Amino acid sequence: MKKVAVIFSGCGVFDGAEIHESVLTLLNLEKVGASYQCFAPNIDQFHVINHLTGETQEERRNVLVEAARIARGEIADLETLNADEFDALVIPGGFGVAKNLSDFAFKGAESTILESIKIVCRAFNSQQKPIAYLCIAPALIPHIHAPGTLATIGSDVDTAAAINTLGAKHVECTVSDIVVDEGEKVISTPAYMLASSVLEAASGIEKAISKLVEMA
Amino acid sequence: MKKVAVIFSGCGVFDGAEIHESVLTLLNLEKVGASYQCFAPNIDQFHVINHLTGETQEERRNVLVEAARIARGEIADLETLNADEFDALVIPGGFGVAKNLSDFAFKGAESTILESIKIVCRAFNSQQKPIAYLCIAPALIPHIHAPGTLATIGSDVDTAAAINTLGAKHVECTVSDIVVDEGEKVISTPAYMLASSVLEAASGIEKAISKLVEMA
Repeated sequence: MKKVAVIFSGCGVFDGAEIHESVLTLLNLEKVGASYQCFAPNIDQFHVINHLTGETQEERRNVLVEAARIARGEIADLETLNADEFDALVIPGGFGVAKNLSDFAFKGAESTILESIKIVCRAFNSQQKPIAYLCIAPALIPHIHAPGTLATIGSDVDTAAAINTLGAKHVECTVSDIVVDEGEKVISTPAYMLASSVLEAASGIEKAISKLVEMA
Repeated sequence: MKKVAVIFSGCGVFDGAEIHESVLTLLNLEKVGASYQCFAPNIDQFHVINHLTGETQEERRNVLVEAARIARGEIADLETLNADEFDALVIPGGFGVAKNLSDFAFKGAESTILESIKIVCRAFNSQQKPIAYLCIAPALIPHIHAPGTLATIGSDVDTAAAINTLGAKHVECTVSDIVVDEGEKVISTPAYMLASSVLEAASGIEKAISKLVEMA
């Protein structure tokens, strides 16, 4: 049985991990017979968004503590993630990737990423273990993988341009499809960068997770 | 196309709506070609649980605002739910049902339920529209439906006894199956009352949602 590490960036599309993508990731890992362990960084969220109004709330929440909601408490600090113990890695999307795991939401082509994410993803990469990046998570790819690594965020021109400037090579992709860089063992799919429903997001995520476990 | 109302009780298994069950509900509604609108009561949660440690956090959160995380912002106040506009209703589980929509978690056989939930569910029932209750949500059934209405919460003896005392008739049920009261048009499935994985929970929820839309 293949063991897959899953990294969440909080709990909620506007300030954390996208919840539908996160649950679909776990569901599809089980469907293809893989086991998984969830992780998240033990840091404060960049901010807290009221998901009803879209306004910023004056409070602080911790990425690991909130991500534990999606994982039903079964989650560990990202600092304890040892790539040696896993066969593959997947990072679902949500603004948490672009606000908590990196500052891509604010700095785009001049963004940087969390050191702990960089170390973990590079460890998987150096062991030739595949990584799937969903939705906006491919914004991390140029910080981790070889220049010119194929990646998709769907079809948004500005986001694609920022990813290209950072050093990846953006490929347009429909919501039900995936982009695979065979050399780098990197898989990406647009999910809610394009999806207008959970069923649409599910189609690409199912394909991405199948490919991830197949390559592991 | 059948229109289904979905009621969430927060966002997180220990103090709100169970996230996996909630997402699987939306996914399966789309799979069978139904449209949906999410709702939640605009009230404070009973409390806030740190899902990493299990401890109570000293803060207040609003059920509607937190449920909006699962619904990606597309959610309305339960007070605005008009049964006339929908063909069916579904309530996913999570402790939120037993802490926010009712006090079943604390009072069991002596529990009461939120007035707004009672009014809405009885409106669907009086119009002969089916309702699906997932996981612990069947604890609401005796407060809404005719005495002796068939309901399942899986196989927990104490919980089943409390539901029976309240006036429903508990039926044991495996995680992949459903219990249907044809007369009352009430569907229930154990989901995470029994499930040990998201895939297990998915099996019964898929069946429950298919039956719900078929009966609508």
